[in-house]
Amino acid sequence: MGNVDDSSIKALVFDVFGTVVDWRSGVAREVTPFIASQKLTVNPFEFADAWRREYVPAMAEVRAGNRGFVRLDVLHRENLDKVLTELGIDPQSIPAASLDELNLAWHKLDPWPDAVPGLTRLKDRFIIAPLSNGNIRLMLDIAKRAGIPWDAILGAEVVRMYKPAPSVYLDTAELLAIEPAELCMVAAHNDDLKAAKACGLKTAFVSRPREHGERQTSDRFAEGQWDFVASSFIELADMMLEVGQG
Amino acid sequence: MGNVDDSSIKALVFDVFGTVVDWRSGVAREVTPFIASQKLTVNPFEFADAWRREYVPAMAEVRAGNRGFVRLDVLHRENLDKVLTELGIDPQSIPAASLDELNLAWHKLDPWPDAVPGLTRLKDRFIIAPLSNGNIRLMLDIAKRAGIPWDAILGAEVVRMYKPAPSVYLDTAELLAIEPAELCMVAAHNDDLKAAKACGLKTAFVSRPREHGERQTSDRFAEGQWDFVASSFIELADMMLEVGQG
Repeated sequence: MGNVDDSSIKALVFDVFGTVVDWRSGVAREVTPFIASQKLTVNPFEFADAWRREYVPAMAEVRAGNRGFVRLDVLHRENLDKVLTELGIDPQSIPAASLDELNLAWHKLDPWPDAVPGLTRLKDRFIIAPLSNGNIRLMLDIAKRAGIPWDAILGAEVVRMYKPAPSVYLDTAELLAIEPAELCMVAAHNDDLKAAKACGLKTAFVSRPREHGERQTSDRFAEGQWDFVASSFIELADMMLEVGQG
Repeated sequence: MGNVDDSSIKALVFDVFGTVVDWRSGVAREVTPFIASQKLTVNPFEFADAWRREYVPAMAEVRAGNRGFVRLDVLHRENLDKVLTELGIDPQSIPAASLDELNLAWHKLDPWPDAVPGLTRLKDRFIIAPLSNGNIRLMLDIAKRAGIPWDAILGAEVVRMYKPAPSVYLDTAELLAIEPAELCMVAAHNDDLKAAKACGLKTAFVSRPREHGERQTSDRFAEGQWDFVASSFIELADMMLEVGQG
């Protein structure tokens, strides 16, 4: 850990949902008034989990070429209809404006407590940007609300493809005018890092063992030879800034 | 001025070269050591002006469809070769690495003194982003060096077309998930605002009467019915924040 020649790293790009922000608590908080108003009995965390479960298959359609690129806000909105149907509610019975508003739950997620302090330190040395499947406006709203000091908003919508397709990582390096090896992907998800590493990027795992709640079993530990492994953005900043000094 | 219903404006996008940053002084400063090392007799401001003169025709090739989109850094580098040739220097006689380094002059431009204070105030109320023909890395480097607090880096490279093509303005509104009338273009150039207004955007003219030096004749005054006309970003912030309050 930290033995990589990270003096060559020029930019850090970050997964956001789960890595920078706690999507599950945020979505649960935002759906709570809706659940009450609809007199539903579903637990808000289960609602959040159900909504998130539709995320990967929805993007897979775009990656497979079955569908042209559409931004994540559109997929989230479609997925909300699916979740409501699963809960026995006809989405057509609810005003579209209410569901559009509810869809913005994903724009109001709080960062993990270490995220902004760590990013602020890392920004002194590196270019920092999100490399999320979330669209530009979604990332922008989260950052503006939470004070995340990104240097730019990169990600799926800029390169018009979803992770973990290789073009997302490679086109992002190209936009930054750097080599893949000069770009480090930071994520709490081993599969994201595996895809980034296969493209020649540096990799940093930050564990988020409560992303999925108390009983999380996946991604609790590093499952690959990542260049950095840390338990917070503060620890990551300590590693990356110290090595660079040395 | 300021009578527009700007409570509907959600985002401000900014021209950068000339509007936010003083490109002429910055490029002149950056080329000075090169001129000395090559024992040239050209005035550094004339060098900057000659380099800038190639800007519009180079982009016109892309807008006309004669050439696929290439980022401005590439055009600037090609244009540098043209300027050197005009000065009687064979670009091939100079190490490519030196010219690549010189090309980064455009990444090291200082904001006009009012720009960062004004933007910082405007950011409290509005989404702020560059809408420049400069590429992402170029905009990012200028912002990081100067502390410009953009919420995102938008512009030509994101939408893969150069201003004043209508798609640049319209696709940017679409990326921000707002109507064209909710987006305000801020520029020191009447032609940029004319194109933006034709797409339904709001417009703000900020005069930069020294962009081209002491004897500037163009763009000294507003030449259209722009929604806001100001002499600095501070004054623009006063107008836009006051009206919003009222």
